[in-house]
Amino acid sequence: MPSLGTALAVLLAGAAPAPAPASPVAAAVQRWRTAHEAEVVRSLADLLALPNVASDTAAIGRNAERILALLEQRGAQGRLLDGLGGPPVVYAELPAPGARHTVVVYAHYDGQPVDPARWTSPPWTPVLRTRALDQGGKDLDLAALPAGPMDPEWRLYGRSASDDKGTIVAVLAALDALQAAGIPRTVRLKFFFEGEEEAGSPHLSAVLAANRALLESDGWLLGDGPVHQTRRPQLFFGARGVTGLEITAYGPLRPLHSGHYGNWAPNPAVQIAHVVASLRDVDGRITVAGYYDDVRPLSAAEKAALDAVPAVDEALRAEYGLAATEAGGAALVQRIMLPALNVRGLQAGAVGERAANAIPSEASASIDFRLVPDQTPAGIRARVEAHLKGQGFTLIDHAPGADERRATPRLLRLHWEGGYPPARTPLDAPFSRAVTAAIEETLGAPLVRMPMLGGSIPMSLFVEATGRPIVGLPIANHDNNQHAADENLRLQNLWDGTLAYAAVFARLGARLP
Amino acid sequence: MPSLGTALAVLLAGAAPAPAPASPVAAAVQRWRTAHEAEVVRSLADLLALPNVASDTAAIGRNAERILALLEQRGAQGRLLDGLGGPPVVYAELPAPGARHTVVVYAHYDGQPVDPARWTSPPWTPVLRTRALDQGGKDLDLAALPAGPMDPEWRLYGRSASDDKGTIVAVLAALDALQAAGIPRTVRLKFFFEGEEEAGSPHLSAVLAANRALLESDGWLLGDGPVHQTRRPQLFFGARGVTGLEITAYGPLRPLHSGHYGNWAPNPAVQIAHVVASLRDVDGRITVAGYYDDVRPLSAAEKAALDAVPAVDEALRAEYGLAATEAGGAALVQRIMLPALNVRGLQAGAVGERAANAIPSEASASIDFRLVPDQTPAGIRARVEAHLKGQGFTLIDHAPGADERRATPRLLRLHWEGGYPPARTPLDAPFSRAVTAAIEETLGAPLVRMPMLGGSIPMSLFVEATGRPIVGLPIANHDNNQHAADENLRLQNLWDGTLAYAAVFARLGARLP
Repeated sequence: MPSLGTALAVLLAGAAPAPAPASPVAAAVQRWRTAHEAEVVRSLADLLALPNVASDTAAIGRNAERILALLEQRGAQGRLLDGLGGPPVVYAELPAPGARHTVVVYAHYDGQPVDPARWTSPPWTPVLRTRALDQGGKDLDLAALPAGPMDPEWRLYGRSASDDKGTIVAVLAALDALQAAGIPRTVRLKFFFEGEEEAGSPHLSAVLAANRALLESDGWLLGDGPVHQTRRPQLFFGARGVTGLEITAYGPLRPLHSGHYGNWAPNPAVQIAHVVASLRDVDGRITVAGYYDDVRPLSAAEKAALDAVPAVDEALRAEYGLAATEAGGAALVQRIMLPALNVRGLQAGAVGERAANAIPSEASASIDFRLVPDQTPAGIRARVEAHLKGQGFTLIDHAPGADERRATPRLLRLHWEGGYPPARTPLDAPFSRAVTAAIEETLGAPLVRMPMLGGSIPMSLFVEATGRPIVGLPIANHDNNQHAADENLRLQNLWDGTLAYAAVFARLGARLP
Repeated sequence: MPSLGTALAVLLAGAAPAPAPASPVAAAVQRWRTAHEAEVVRSLADLLALPNVASDTAAIGRNAERILALLEQRGAQGRLLDGLGGPPVVYAELPAPGARHTVVVYAHYDGQPVDPARWTSPPWTPVLRTRALDQGGKDLDLAALPAGPMDPEWRLYGRSASDDKGTIVAVLAALDALQAAGIPRTVRLKFFFEGEEEAGSPHLSAVLAANRALLESDGWLLGDGPVHQTRRPQLFFGARGVTGLEITAYGPLRPLHSGHYGNWAPNPAVQIAHVVASLRDVDGRITVAGYYDDVRPLSAAEKAALDAVPAVDEALRAEYGLAATEAGGAALVQRIMLPALNVRGLQAGAVGERAANAIPSEASASIDFRLVPDQTPAGIRARVEAHLKGQGFTLIDHAPGADERRATPRLLRLHWEGGYPPARTPLDAPFSRAVTAAIEETLGAPLVRMPMLGGSIPMSLFVEATGRPIVGLPIANHDNNQHAADENLRLQNLWDGTLAYAAVFARLGARLP
């Protein structure tokens, strides 16, 4: 999933030093980690050196085999599942003697495509730096790491450092730490590491369905995404769904002189502006009839969790140059619990120096919709189309020819993207409560519990295919340049992530009913 | 002024052959012209061979000197007026013994810049063709023109063939025809041929003001623009004014992920859509308070003239692929008598394949306004700004920095172009009536009288600087590819133009009170 942006420097500058371990698990993991930091960092660096764009079949296969081997070194029984047209899924199981429960850990091992020209160092040449590049980070020597603890603000740069190879290495480190301390796992573990998430997971549903029995569990942990902007560990229990639409309005077959034909020939730029304005107001309220009918209200537990999320709005407003935000300055976490209609593009004629006094031939608006339970892409589509038909538009799904344009007034071409539905696992579901408790009792501090991410992750696919709940347990720093150049993982996030996964492995079984 | 587009082939296919001359002047001009067609065409071709982009000082000077010499060969006393920073104006006077009245003939001798790659033959290598290129026109040999009459559908191709060197040659031919027939001119003639009209006439007002006494007259004839789409001769008595505006709205300093920040961070594309929708409806009605207050109603004479304009709407709708036109299909000639607000461009984020799920950082709309009497650019600006301020926007005239964006919500940057006011000489003013009568009695048929062109020509500058009325007497075929590649003049239009100017020179003095 995409990056949350950089900074919040003011908030973060005052972060307190880590307190003493709050639990035996925390103490054991910290002890092991402190002695093995260089080993873990090198292990992640080795993995980052493998190019991992999903479309590069040979390279992606090398990643899968390496990761399977790393799991097998920890005693897991694994194999590569057929990707059914996509890269293989790395699958492995690790038993837990006497455990009554099973959790599946999901992450993806492929990375976003890269534009090497934009990277400070080559994307698959991992580089450790003293801090973020935009804060003056200097290169360190990966071949000469200190034997003892490192500065936790150091960052490891490379494609997938945070998204999601960092998660995979944190999971492996958690296993090692528990093993070294002799702390037993209380849940049976299944690992499901996908190889084409950054390509849109086109085969994920099919692979899940084909392996339904194999994947039987109490629930899923999704090791993707960032922790909270305050750097506090975070669980997320859902994500908004998404769909997309491009609307095109038509004027004359070719641009016409606006003096000779202005206010006679229909202007498609004006039509598209009115269409957009009819869909939502400037405060984000969607003005399509019935649009909010399917919105499931937040539960009391979800509302309470939101109220406890640390406020970062003021810092974000300053960073993003916003004098005001929509809906009268309502809190960001409240806003992302609602459906959103975002105009991601407008295009008609030309602006600036290239503007010509002409009536454009066509005009387009590109929109992405963020869906919340119980909205669906099909339901959104039906309501938007009814709204536009109600305005007298004739809706078509193709670029109209001259004859169709001559014959039909108020034509709109709608081009829908598929997308997927939202998902939200109840915060008070047994699995949600157990994951939360396992980590919080280990850390001795409350987690940030986000009922739903504003961004979209196809968590609904897992729920649909397996019927099991899913909770997001991310490790990456929010300022990790995910999907962009200079992707990186802050070391403290790697250590926090190691501890969080260790907490789940050690405590979840005891917390599940 | 820009082209009116091609075609209307259905309407034009049935054009009747020219009737017998309706007057002694018509008979004399037709007789002379029939015997001198090759000479006139060669004269125009020679003029077209001179490159004439206003910014090419040396070339434009050669045009001015050649045209001055052509006028002097007809007995005119002339000189080049200082262009006050621009190319010289060709000025000349031709007396008319006993005449009590004076008319100034305006045309421009510069041409639009060219993109030679788009031309079928080089722009300054005149080529005579059997008909329009898009109707299969074949090249003819300019060096072997027939001695007798040519096919009047032949066209001469070259930059400025129609805009306006054709007018200049028609004026010269009119003088020659009257001279040969011994028909005296009834008005004193002044010629004012400008050299930078296609560059926006930046020095025209100053040159007119500096030569106010020299240019004293009863009125101006403006030899620019096209005849009616039916090919009937046309007079136009005004033109809409014009101004331009680019509006930019601002969102976050950089594009933000629409999932994480959608319906929290303000979306400038939505703002700009609402701004545009608030300015006008889809039927062309401008919804800015007081916008129509300054609109001078059409007079009875103007209404009657409009009613007599041949209807071409149906043919234009078919050609331009329009199933419907604005305002319930109201007639084009009625619509261009009203103010227009044309959205010539919209730009925000990206559409199509390049669309990303992001909140754009800024969004712009580019607008051109067509003004009618008694609107002014300053008046339009005041009303639009009041409208936007009334919506709570803070208006600025510069690109805001980060601090200004942080401090001020609902910022809109307005970038105004200057433009110029509209002009409309009353149809029943003595000068208008006299020009009309002089031509109609010579042709024996009614002219198309257009109270105002929809397109903009700075006719108001002449009226302001000289206090005299101005009437447009165009000669070009509407399908002349003006401002584009393959500009051309249809020979029949050259002959009709010659006759129209001869009619004015021979009869205007007798018709003016």
